[in-house]
Amino acid sequence: MGLNISKLAKEIKPSATLSLKEEVNSLEKEYGFTIIDLTAGQPDTGPTEDVLQALLEGGKLHKYGPVQGDLELRGILSEVINREIGVRYDPQDIAITVGVKSGIDILMKVLLEPGENAGIIVPFWVTYPEAVRLAHGIPCFVESDQALRPDPARLRKEVEENNIKVLLYSSPCNPSGVVYTEDELQGIAKIVKEKNIWVISDEIYGACVFHGRKHRSILSIEDMRSNAILVDGASKRFGVPGWRIGYVAGPREVIAAFTKLQGHINSGTSRPEQYAMRIAYTSEKARQATEQMRQRYERNADIFVNGLSQAYGISCIKPEGAFYAFPNIKKLFGTEYEFAGKRYRIKTSTDFRNFLLRKAQVVAVEGSAFGMDDYIRFSLATNEETIVNALGNIKSAVGELA
Amino acid sequence: MGLNISKLAKEIKPSATLSLKEEVNSLEKEYGFTIIDLTAGQPDTGPTEDVLQALLEGGKLHKYGPVQGDLELRGILSEVINREIGVRYDPQDIAITVGVKSGIDILMKVLLEPGENAGIIVPFWVTYPEAVRLAHGIPCFVESDQALRPDPARLRKEVEENNIKVLLYSSPCNPSGVVYTEDELQGIAKIVKEKNIWVISDEIYGACVFHGRKHRSILSIEDMRSNAILVDGASKRFGVPGWRIGYVAGPREVIAAFTKLQGHINSGTSRPEQYAMRIAYTSEKARQATEQMRQRYERNADIFVNGLSQAYGISCIKPEGAFYAFPNIKKLFGTEYEFAGKRYRIKTSTDFRNFLLRKAQVVAVEGSAFGMDDYIRFSLATNEETIVNALGNIKSAVGELA
Repeated sequence: MGLNISKLAKEIKPSATLSLKEEVNSLEKEYGFTIIDLTAGQPDTGPTEDVLQALLEGGKLHKYGPVQGDLELRGILSEVINREIGVRYDPQDIAITVGVKSGIDILMKVLLEPGENAGIIVPFWVTYPEAVRLAHGIPCFVESDQALRPDPARLRKEVEENNIKVLLYSSPCNPSGVVYTEDELQGIAKIVKEKNIWVISDEIYGACVFHGRKHRSILSIEDMRSNAILVDGASKRFGVPGWRIGYVAGPREVIAAFTKLQGHINSGTSRPEQYAMRIAYTSEKARQATEQMRQRYERNADIFVNGLSQAYGISCIKPEGAFYAFPNIKKLFGTEYEFAGKRYRIKTSTDFRNFLLRKAQVVAVEGSAFGMDDYIRFSLATNEETIVNALGNIKSAVGELA
Repeated sequence: MGLNISKLAKEIKPSATLSLKEEVNSLEKEYGFTIIDLTAGQPDTGPTEDVLQALLEGGKLHKYGPVQGDLELRGILSEVINREIGVRYDPQDIAITVGVKSGIDILMKVLLEPGENAGIIVPFWVTYPEAVRLAHGIPCFVESDQALRPDPARLRKEVEENNIKVLLYSSPCNPSGVVYTEDELQGIAKIVKEKNIWVISDEIYGACVFHGRKHRSILSIEDMRSNAILVDGASKRFGVPGWRIGYVAGPREVIAAFTKLQGHINSGTSRPEQYAMRIAYTSEKARQATEQMRQRYERNADIFVNGLSQAYGISCIKPEGAFYAFPNIKKLFGTEYEFAGKRYRIKTSTDFRNFLLRKAQVVAVEGSAFGMDDYIRFSLATNEETIVNALGNIKSAVGELA
């Protein structure tokens, strides 16, 4: 008898960005390349000094805290949600999590029976389908329209035909940069209510919307309280993904069940960071740093997408938020290039990613990881100089494509 | 159509100690009691100053780290395992986790197919059966002998009859305080190898063994490398359960699958704490603090168990490690007492727990939470004065039982 790991463990896909790292390292070693990394799903800046200092005071919270998260932080988040989304979630209706990932992982177990279907709007964040599979659910993909905007007709059809129990999306969207409008959210909410399904709204990029837009949440739509669950966190807003702070807010019975499961799954996240977040979410310095970051990424997006539009065969919608560009590269499929004496033909987004790596010394993430093989994702969470250099490299490499 | 949370979320039991807190609060409010809390699953002391200070420097690690955990810490843990257990696990064979809980949660998904059986040695830590259920596995309970020691004959029978795929136990044992001997581990290892099953060895109390014993690990037994997985962490050793630092070590393919899943489940634990642990695991101050804590809890165990043995109807095995006393109270079942004008009869460990709460103003955790209703668990992770006071209260309350 062989001793094997589970079928599930075999089937779960590794995170797309991880395997990339090895390829980058080997190109850097073998060819002496300096690769410009545009894969990062995180800000290039860190927390403000007051938030960093708070970690030391927070270290004194070394004992177990409430599994649901420290009440003081939940109180502050209740205010944040009220101010930014415009609805009242009491501290009891909020649970602090080990980042958005753990929030989604546990929610899947709370909301989905094994074998049930979860609808995921395409393009999607890489972890959604795997989180569904980890709960033994089945991911069903809901196509967006040509402009990568939510499509109510398709959504309704998919929910009906596949008997979808939970719907998942992010707005601002990672990877597309689309920010759902009030009308679009109303359209989704109508279907959610009519079919009486759960909807998980991932708003981790909510503090990063561009050109005077306002971030809207489905939670603010009338009658959504019993169906909608918010997942959000501090990683992008305060530049602390390594600190692992997220939260969920939703119907009280969902949060109670969530907390019960969290009590066995991980006991909640680190308390020093929970303490530091009390400072972060109330600090004027931290608020200003977030706003400066937002402005920088808005400018990066403008420069990068305007520049890309001059490159042959690439078209890109203008990001409305988050910090990515997600251009369509389908027109370049079928082209060929040479590298180190070998000829390559570009047939997929992974091929295009490899082309950029080899010929532009820029690394991005293939669109297939987000459910759309005709696209590629560039992270713009870096400084302007890097954006300009990457753009130059990409334009000249693409210009040489036959 | 009603919108419901999942069957799983409904069935998972809340942590036994949580519901207790509410009862304690209400007794304190209603009767002005000052309850002596002997439920804590954590040291009464915190980290040493050097470890606490390290958190601030660690805060600078605000970006995502490797999902498997920071390499520097894994390197140090590799040395710790080598020194303390006597076997070599490379940094590649170790993953840092959000405490032991997340380690076990993810391992269950890696090792167990839905519907498969996991063997849990009784008495057990409350989270084991729920972790199995969360992976849609079925917990099977393996009785110990009269002295609460592992029983190879029963284990073999249970593994065969129930086709057990994974075996789980803790040594030093929470709640019994039993520390498995080399012979006992050899006995378990023989069955594990013969039946070719996985074994998860929870050694979180490994630094707290009494009276000159040496902590032994099944990982050190020949031929166990491909079957055994260690789960351990910093919570008890350094007094930092609120910091959420655990780790797993095992066969390379298990750790690789574990890391892949962790990449979607929570991305790993907070990096500032990972940094602080580099200091903790190499600090002479921290080592001394652990040893002083061990000595205090050894003395507490001696005082408490010797004292208890004078109480009518209570018998308790001498704890060999961890920081609990787990006396048998079966002889007191059937006795009665009066409180606030009402008469109560003690029929279960929960009844006895309530009796202690009301009549001795001491709170402990009922044995049923650990799979043995004839027992009750007292935490000794407190100061000597509290132990002496609790003992006095318990003895006088039990003395009045009819």
